[in-house]
Amino acid sequence: MILKTSSSLIETLRDRRQRLANLIDFPAILWSGTTSPRNFPANVFPFRANSHFLYFTGLPLRNAAIRLSAGKLELFMDDPQPDSALWHGEMPDREEIAQIIGADVAKPMAELELWTEEAATIAVQDAATWTQQSQLLNRWVLPLKSPQDIDLELAKAIISLRLIHDDGALAELRKAAAVTVEAHKAGMAATTHAQIEAQVRAAMEQVIIANNMTTSYNSIVTVHGEVLHNEQYHHSLQPGDLILADVGAETETGWAGDVTRTWPVGGKFSSTQRDIYDIVLAAHDACIAKVSPGVEYQDLHLLACTVIAEGLVNLGILQGNPQDLVEINAHALFFPHGIGHLLGLDVHDMEDLGDLAGYEEGRTRSNHFGLSYLRLNRPLRPGMLVTIEPGFYQVPAILNHANVRSQYQDVVNWEHLSQFADVRGIRIEDDVLVTQESRDVLTAALPTQASQIEDLVCR
Amino acid sequence: MILKTSSSLIETLRDRRQRLANLIDFPAILWSGTTSPRNFPANVFPFRANSHFLYFTGLPLRNAAIRLSAGKLELFMDDPQPDSALWHGEMPDREEIAQIIGADVAKPMAELELWTEEAATIAVQDAATWTQQSQLLNRWVLPLKSPQDIDLELAKAIISLRLIHDDGALAELRKAAAVTVEAHKAGMAATTHAQIEAQVRAAMEQVIIANNMTTSYNSIVTVHGEVLHNEQYHHSLQPGDLILADVGAETETGWAGDVTRTWPVGGKFSSTQRDIYDIVLAAHDACIAKVSPGVEYQDLHLLACTVIAEGLVNLGILQGNPQDLVEINAHALFFPHGIGHLLGLDVHDMEDLGDLAGYEEGRTRSNHFGLSYLRLNRPLRPGMLVTIEPGFYQVPAILNHANVRSQYQDVVNWEHLSQFADVRGIRIEDDVLVTQESRDVLTAALPTQASQIEDLVCR
Repeated sequence: MILKTSSSLIETLRDRRQRLANLIDFPAILWSGTTSPRNFPANVFPFRANSHFLYFTGLPLRNAAIRLSAGKLELFMDDPQPDSALWHGEMPDREEIAQIIGADVAKPMAELELWTEEAATIAVQDAATWTQQSQLLNRWVLPLKSPQDIDLELAKAIISLRLIHDDGALAELRKAAAVTVEAHKAGMAATTHAQIEAQVRAAMEQVIIANNMTTSYNSIVTVHGEVLHNEQYHHSLQPGDLILADVGAETETGWAGDVTRTWPVGGKFSSTQRDIYDIVLAAHDACIAKVSPGVEYQDLHLLACTVIAEGLVNLGILQGNPQDLVEINAHALFFPHGIGHLLGLDVHDMEDLGDLAGYEEGRTRSNHFGLSYLRLNRPLRPGMLVTIEPGFYQVPAILNHANVRSQYQDVVNWEHLSQFADVRGIRIEDDVLVTQESRDVLTAALPTQASQIEDLVCR
Repeated sequence: MILKTSSSLIETLRDRRQRLANLIDFPAILWSGTTSPRNFPANVFPFRANSHFLYFTGLPLRNAAIRLSAGKLELFMDDPQPDSALWHGEMPDREEIAQIIGADVAKPMAELELWTEEAATIAVQDAATWTQQSQLLNRWVLPLKSPQDIDLELAKAIISLRLIHDDGALAELRKAAAVTVEAHKAGMAATTHAQIEAQVRAAMEQVIIANNMTTSYNSIVTVHGEVLHNEQYHHSLQPGDLILADVGAETETGWAGDVTRTWPVGGKFSSTQRDIYDIVLAAHDACIAKVSPGVEYQDLHLLACTVIAEGLVNLGILQGNPQDLVEINAHALFFPHGIGHLLGLDVHDMEDLGDLAGYEEGRTRSNHFGLSYLRLNRPLRPGMLVTIEPGFYQVPAILNHANVRSQYQDVVNWEHLSQFADVRGIRIEDDVLVTQESRDVLTAALPTQASQIEDLVCR
């Protein structure tokens, strides 16, 4: 973290505060959080500041809080302990930090208790901090509890701000996207020399670490792409395998990238792999081409379902009319998740607030299999950043399920499907910004065409 | 994690249980812990199982507990949810896990409450788990609270086991050491092409990730070696700088490596850097040469202090008799930490129990500056693994302190010291096993001589 005063950061933060002040007439206190212990208290996980706090301070401060009231910013944090310089180096003191973020006032943490009246907050994830929040505000502030009353009002106000990315946010999101793209290229280039998944992952994360960033979520780098959140990396790579890599970089101030590509270990897709890849890519391209203000995100999801169903009919894997197949959820046998989600300071942006951010007010999750995993259901607006990530998976737990087999007996050509056994999982994911006129794919520098992917692997 | 039944794992675990049963006559329940949330509940830090649990199960299971009683092993965990196969893949069920670890009985988690009577435990770090521990045992089990009564007895019994590494442990520790050595070599080789610290760190962690391991603590890779726990990586590398890298690998089942080397960015130590480096190396070598059963670890610390004081007198930085200088803590101006610590499943092994493991019964920490940071004060015994890590640092917070300046006015040749301004921090650390006769340096494959280090950087 290079700490220096920049007028653009100060202006960005002032503007965010002012817009918040236009929406709520009570003070808000946001905590940064503290480190979480790993195997013993002094051995902690890398610190990640709370995203709402980051949005209004731009700095990953530890053990700090801010009070936002009528556009004013008050910083509460303690100066470093005398001992701390030995272990952690000379750290900027409270006054210096206050200057960098443009705070109006800076006070020690102990004074925060004098300023809690009528204040709303949002729960931080670590127990030490939410305990402190609960004590100071004299009510339970729990990360798994839905916000109520003024906390709910605050959450809705912050959501309305964070949904629409300002220039300060976009500058960071573009940095995250650029490093994410480089990481994927490095992963592709490392594949032909790799023996196990972990070596491909290492080549990708090296790029992220070298750029002084972190991963925005635990990387998925696997030959078992059918496991959606696979976190195993020990499998050996076989020439006929596909690697599915879902890896994203996060900037020092917390802004996330999130990209998936799928490539052949041997550098060349088999004809069956290529057939399915092109269907997923067609869904990806069709959805992205439709991204523009006013479009319902759920309609993009349904479009992807239809394109995938159509493709599978053309390949002879599904039988029937694509629209009808989507009606009876046949596409979800192979595409059982949503088309994507919001992206910002969190990789599923603001998911700490449950579906409050993802779902337009008055809408709730469907219990329809397939739609139930859709994390975003809002009309698109300029400044929103979403992922578009269709996929095709052969999940044994789904396809071998007796009920599924009988329900879809006549819809799936099971015998023909067995010829596509070398396709366990394919996903193609990009980060797409809704603009005034249409869209801007932040991760467009990473090719998607099968032949381009092959070139990157063989380079 | 490759899960397969191995008779050697089963035997190792049985032996550990039997030795525990020889020490305590009440049951013990150990929890594995659960994931800690990062910025929202579904985005978690990489899971790290509790070390005491790992010692008796050998597997990083999530949300599991074991009950150890009279040499018997009972496993409590739930089978994966039906949904889980979609997101996390087909996981081995409770019965399969029980077979792999040689459990006598396997039961769902809900049955654990029937088996808590008179049982001792050790607090796990994550709040969700210590809350569960406290509820089930009907007493506060907190990671920051010293264990009492049977919990204390259990802690002491486990310490006596974990202090002396068995063959199963050593096999893992040697793996961690080997990968740690390779990571350091990669860091050295990457330096001449690197512009910032993060790029050197990336080269090192790539090796660890590629071996499907994790770092055993947050890496220190810095040109500001004088900051003991520096976790910043953004500084640019200048030709005259030294890089201090304190980086260790941890195996899949939790066993740690911990190594530090210091090398010149430009590939060649300056004469002042070389002078100080050789003093630190002399202290390192002298301590390691003394490691053998019966030796007091604190005496190794004092030996390092004396060798460093001697060296600094010879260089003209300190003035006086080395023994006298150590008496008045003059060495601690430049070497303000302890000579090392226990190493095992934790990088500071069993530090979750405070000083119970590090300090022989009846001994407590000194409040002497210098000795107060000594984490280990026991006579060495065969099977103990310790780090030896002397250093030299110019910490502005110490050396510019007015009291220090006046107290040590005649002891330090401040003017002469200023010629060594290009030495901000040097540390050399290896992992040393106490054997029956003497010692075995697990990380000996990584050179320590200045000229060898230069060769590795310039290779």
